[in-house]
Amino acid sequence: MILPLRLIPRVAAAAARLTPAASCAPTLLPPRRARLLPALAMAAAAYSAGSGVGRRLLFRQLFEAESSTYTYLLADVADPDKPAVLIDPVDRTVDRDLNLIKELGLKLVYAMNTHVHADHITGTGLLKAKLPGVKSVISKASGAKADHFVDHGDKIHFGNLFLEVRATPGHTAGCVTYVTGDADGQPSPRMAFTGDALLIRACGRTDFQGGSPDQLYESVHSQASMQNLIFTLPKDTLLYPAHDYKGFTVSTVEEEVAYNARLTKDKETFKGIMDNLNLRYPKMIDVAVPANLVCGIQDPPPKI
Amino acid sequence: MILPLRLIPRVAAAAARLTPAASCAPTLLPPRRARLLPALAMAAAAYSAGSGVGRRLLFRQLFEAESSTYTYLLADVADPDKPAVLIDPVDRTVDRDLNLIKELGLKLVYAMNTHVHADHITGTGLLKAKLPGVKSVISKASGAKADHFVDHGDKIHFGNLFLEVRATPGHTAGCVTYVTGDADGQPSPRMAFTGDALLIRACGRTDFQGGSPDQLYESVHSQASMQNLIFTLPKDTLLYPAHDYKGFTVSTVEEEVAYNARLTKDKETFKGIMDNLNLRYPKMIDVAVPANLVCGIQDPPPKI
Repeated sequence: MILPLRLIPRVAAAAARLTPAASCAPTLLPPRRARLLPALAMAAAAYSAGSGVGRRLLFRQLFEAESSTYTYLLADVADPDKPAVLIDPVDRTVDRDLNLIKELGLKLVYAMNTHVHADHITGTGLLKAKLPGVKSVISKASGAKADHFVDHGDKIHFGNLFLEVRATPGHTAGCVTYVTGDADGQPSPRMAFTGDALLIRACGRTDFQGGSPDQLYESVHSQASMQNLIFTLPKDTLLYPAHDYKGFTVSTVEEEVAYNARLTKDKETFKGIMDNLNLRYPKMIDVAVPANLVCGIQDPPPKI
Repeated sequence: MILPLRLIPRVAAAAARLTPAASCAPTLLPPRRARLLPALAMAAAAYSAGSGVGRRLLFRQLFEAESSTYTYLLADVADPDKPAVLIDPVDRTVDRDLNLIKELGLKLVYAMNTHVHADHITGTGLLKAKLPGVKSVISKASGAKADHFVDHGDKIHFGNLFLEVRATPGHTAGCVTYVTGDADGQPSPRMAFTGDALLIRACGRTDFQGGSPDQLYESVHSQASMQNLIFTLPKDTLLYPAHDYKGFTVSTVEEEVAYNARLTKDKETFKGIMDNLNLRYPKMIDVAVPANLVCGIQDPPPKI
């Protein structure tokens, strides 16, 4: 491999040679004026690929195709340690994720799960085995084994960035949503990692692992409580789910409030939908859930 | 569907009720200091999920699983028209993309291809049929049919944003890379949509459709010419390929200059690699290429 330290000056020198190519070249005409849909006019101005925090947050969305799972890598690259967290890692993609973390010069601190997954085996155990010092994180309410247990309102710091923990049960009894901090220097717009509580235009099933459509509805809407859960976050908050099956990568609070196929309904209609999904028994559940209750695998043997 | 106009104030009001939840809650300890890898120390500070242009650019990355194709939606949401472009749309996901464009209140102006794809049928023809007024865009060198033909150095404007066209042949003779503009008010870091010329840690094959490893190497490196192609773009430029088969969503120039498995090699080694890939004949090529030469389908019948 060519050493980046040798390459960086070369790239910088090349960049310095940039000329505004073809500034006098022909251009395609700008579009004609159009009739506008009113939808999302306000919040659209806040949409972006995320990370409005300038150059502090490194953010990568990673996909595992067999279970359609998204794993999220966040790091504070303005901190000399470049401390990083992985949200919802998958066992079969741990080596890919570790190689990327190494290439980017990050220090993985926490391997976090939003809940005990039923459709894939978490990568946290393998990450701990392959990268000693990494700590696993999951909610206390999940009943799973981990190095750190979190409750609603806890904060998870990495460098000068932090994630806030929101209890969002309903898909499982222990589901949490991790939300970027509400403070100066934190990402703007905010980013919420919703696990299976809220999927893009959909939501996780509620028929096993202590699931409850009633509870999920409250977790997402929750306008009455003082808890800032999902739909009560700022409308430009970027929503990153644990899965997508249609090729979407991100949504926003305003978009889901307007267009979520289930959660825009009233609570009774929502419960009716969820109680009549008639989904097949998850093929991985009998393997995944017991494994995920112990970080995917048993802890590595203690170092001698 | 609940009208966003009714929802927006509700969400805004809820957002206004936000309290910094659990600011006195327990927190996980910040990480211990770590030994740092030197890699990418400089450019890491520029990584983000993209779109440093504040609130003007709406950016969405969309995935089509069968051909592992990424389609990119970009719009200027600060322009009252919200003009949008789609890069490398796929026929089977056109309805998904059109529905998202409608929900977001965008006006699709251009359906663009980076090249004549061999692995899927472009969505441009269907988009033109379903949304009259949309114009298809492809390079003149592709030999394909389209409403607008672009050459190296051309600019494609949508609102106050624009894409620059870079000729990056080698995967096919007509491949181009679309790069966000080099001017005030354009995305920072820049974003390059590389098609199959550069994939994350890899590159497109060069054994058909006028492909040439020699030409691809020059297209990517191109340090000698005055053309600003891929590796000579600023090192923090975000690279968005037409495909990924491992679940990566984005890379950067500096990352690929350091870690691309093929293009970090010298030209002769690279040519040796590309000439000995022994890849199977693309299963879709005999269907996709003829169709893609005419925008995926014949033009819709003229309106009477």
